[in-house]
Amino acid sequence: MTAVAARPRIDRSRLLARLDTLGQVGAIDGGGVCRLALTDADGDGRDLVVSWMRDLGLRIDVDGIGNVVGTWPADRFDPPVMCGSHIDTVATGGRYDGNLGVLAGLEVIETVVTAGIETSHPLAVAFFTNEEGSRFAPDMLGSLVYAGGLPLELALDTVAIDGAVLADELTRVGYVGPMPCPARPPRAFVELHIEQGPVLEAEDVRIGVVTGVQGISWQELVLEGQSNHAGTTPIALRRDAGYVAAATAVAVRRLAEAIPGLVGTVGRLELHPALVNVVAARATLTVDLRHPDDGVLDDAEQAVAGQVAELAETEGVTATWRRLARFPAAEFDPTVVDLVEQVAADHGLSTRRMPSGAGHDAQILAGVCPAGMIFTPSVGGVSHNPSELTRPDDLEAGANVLLDVLLRLAGDPGDPDDAGAPR
Amino acid sequence: MTAVAARPRIDRSRLLARLDTLGQVGAIDGGGVCRLALTDADGDGRDLVVSWMRDLGLRIDVDGIGNVVGTWPADRFDPPVMCGSHIDTVATGGRYDGNLGVLAGLEVIETVVTAGIETSHPLAVAFFTNEEGSRFAPDMLGSLVYAGGLPLELALDTVAIDGAVLADELTRVGYVGPMPCPARPPRAFVELHIEQGPVLEAEDVRIGVVTGVQGISWQELVLEGQSNHAGTTPIALRRDAGYVAAATAVAVRRLAEAIPGLVGTVGRLELHPALVNVVAARATLTVDLRHPDDGVLDDAEQAVAGQVAELAETEGVTATWRRLARFPAAEFDPTVVDLVEQVAADHGLSTRRMPSGAGHDAQILAGVCPAGMIFTPSVGGVSHNPSELTRPDDLEAGANVLLDVLLRLAGDPGDPDDAGAPR
Repeated sequence: MTAVAARPRIDRSRLLARLDTLGQVGAIDGGGVCRLALTDADGDGRDLVVSWMRDLGLRIDVDGIGNVVGTWPADRFDPPVMCGSHIDTVATGGRYDGNLGVLAGLEVIETVVTAGIETSHPLAVAFFTNEEGSRFAPDMLGSLVYAGGLPLELALDTVAIDGAVLADELTRVGYVGPMPCPARPPRAFVELHIEQGPVLEAEDVRIGVVTGVQGISWQELVLEGQSNHAGTTPIALRRDAGYVAAATAVAVRRLAEAIPGLVGTVGRLELHPALVNVVAARATLTVDLRHPDDGVLDDAEQAVAGQVAELAETEGVTATWRRLARFPAAEFDPTVVDLVEQVAADHGLSTRRMPSGAGHDAQILAGVCPAGMIFTPSVGGVSHNPSELTRPDDLEAGANVLLDVLLRLAGDPGDPDDAGAPR
Repeated sequence: MTAVAARPRIDRSRLLARLDTLGQVGAIDGGGVCRLALTDADGDGRDLVVSWMRDLGLRIDVDGIGNVVGTWPADRFDPPVMCGSHIDTVATGGRYDGNLGVLAGLEVIETVVTAGIETSHPLAVAFFTNEEGSRFAPDMLGSLVYAGGLPLELALDTVAIDGAVLADELTRVGYVGPMPCPARPPRAFVELHIEQGPVLEAEDVRIGVVTGVQGISWQELVLEGQSNHAGTTPIALRRDAGYVAAATAVAVRRLAEAIPGLVGTVGRLELHPALVNVVAARATLTVDLRHPDDGVLDDAEQAVAGQVAELAETEGVTATWRRLARFPAAEFDPTVVDLVEQVAADHGLSTRRMPSGAGHDAQILAGVCPAGMIFTPSVGGVSHNPSELTRPDDLEAGANVLLDVLLRLAGDPGDPDDAGAPR
């Protein structure tokens, strides 16, 4: 315990101050943030974080999709041990989602620099473009391009929900850089993130040791029936797209209740012509399904599709599916997972192994290097909401776990047992 | 039969030409019309119909809510036998809904004028403001004010779905007139209208003898839960306003399937923040319920409210109801109903007694004078839709029934048995 106490520790006040300062960029009522990817607010947030990286003396590399990597020492070009996350938010987002992983990474490197520690491998902190997917689809777009999972040209052509083209917006905010993508993989990648769910708080656990990320399926369903008078059309003769949409949303919920580990959400549902006395001719809705097992997820997709086909046929409505995203379930590197668990235990923190319910950049990086994640508790499990909160003690504890995990992966000369990166 | 054949008949070509000309004002793709109440298009439609009334030599009276009445002879001020309907449409409306009753009324008066017939009582054709209720609530607003069911000042303050105030829009299109409202009741009121439902066509009947209008309930329901991450929030811990909204729409459908004669529709349903990966914090939906028996309708409202309360409590969502409209079921005057049936039979047309599924201005007028309605078949039962269609033969037959019903009510000197208005 004495050896642990003698190790460097992050500066809690500096971390909280940066979270607060970045949280004021794009601030909305209720303490929340709206920095949709590549909007002016996101551009301002990027400029702020890059200014902090620059003040710390990091080398700043920007790639063709606007991913930003800050590396220490600035003159080292061999693969770094990298941490990071994203700073874009949903429209009604909180201050911690993504931002914590970036600012804690910056804090960890500042701590290492200040302490004069030299590591065998360079350290880096990155933020990736459009992780949320709220403005451009798919989510995790930047890390996907970084890891070679999506061609740069295709990603640049992406059209936002507001009609803007990604390439234009990237140029407008000034984040088209020369670093090639796909990038050369880092030596390892570790993402500190808020849980965004209620499990850690409910079990009074301080650190979530993330074993993987559940598979994610996003689909859009367009139902087309016939608009008709709500008072004169007998129920049996209707072709009501709104009813089929509602029944689909209920079917998604029932399926999620029936299959352990499955979550299902209809977060968007629009009717047309959207009048009180007109049977809806068209309904557009999204179906978000997630499960840690890709096979179960595929089965769930099929089950929903089957129920929709039956409902649509009975009602005389056509159903057209469009895939918005499908991320396979990811397993994190066992060495990194063990290391997170061990470091947290060394810090005297309670831990719990758990899959991630949300998608994260780390699951994309896991395809090209050893990767892992550290979760800190979310008060009330609330996220994607202005009232999102993680307590300062938990922010500090998570950042200190990240610090020691990175030092162990990067080869900390202060620890002769440390072998560097996982094999 | 010879006596009938000798009576005057409407000019089919002139009626069809006017329906076509008015249908080009605010025309939309697919042969439909968008003339939402008191928009520029509605103003243009009003100007066109008024120009036809003026050409025919009618006296034109406009009241404080923009209802327009054309009377023949122009110098008669005693209560007329009135026909009419409305010329506003839903956003994706057809050419016949409302317009038929107004233009057939104009055609009937032109036929009477041309034939040189003098009636004991004056004849009038009216169009009422905002019958559809698509832009301002409630529907049948103009006839309600005309009949004293809604104070003028209250109606003028009504705010449209687009934020406009009714009084401003009325002034803008130039239809604020000096005729007092509530108005002095007409001697009788008869409305020719398309069925807007599939019954007459399915039974191969030419004329629907409308016995009354079913009761109508319009309510808005706002559900407030909590926005949260769609991937990390276990189903059991959600407060998903979108799920409760969908389950409500399904419950309305199930109730309509279970209670004979009940129709129920959720035509509007909006989620907020409306993102694929965020559990909806708020849902706003409308519930349209109709039944010929007001007691059954009240019970249906209670049943929906009870199910929503239970769903909302289980989900941890608050439910707030707001009444948009409640029109009691109306019974038409037995003398007028019998007269419509008799005249149609005299014309050799098959008939069917039926309640109206839709709300109509005639049900409001029924509160202040003997009133009735004549239905003509709708192809495929389609209405509130650009493809709304009534066949020319049926348009002509309906207008001729309207002609003779009005002549009988107004005291046709050509028929010594005719006693004039119903007692």
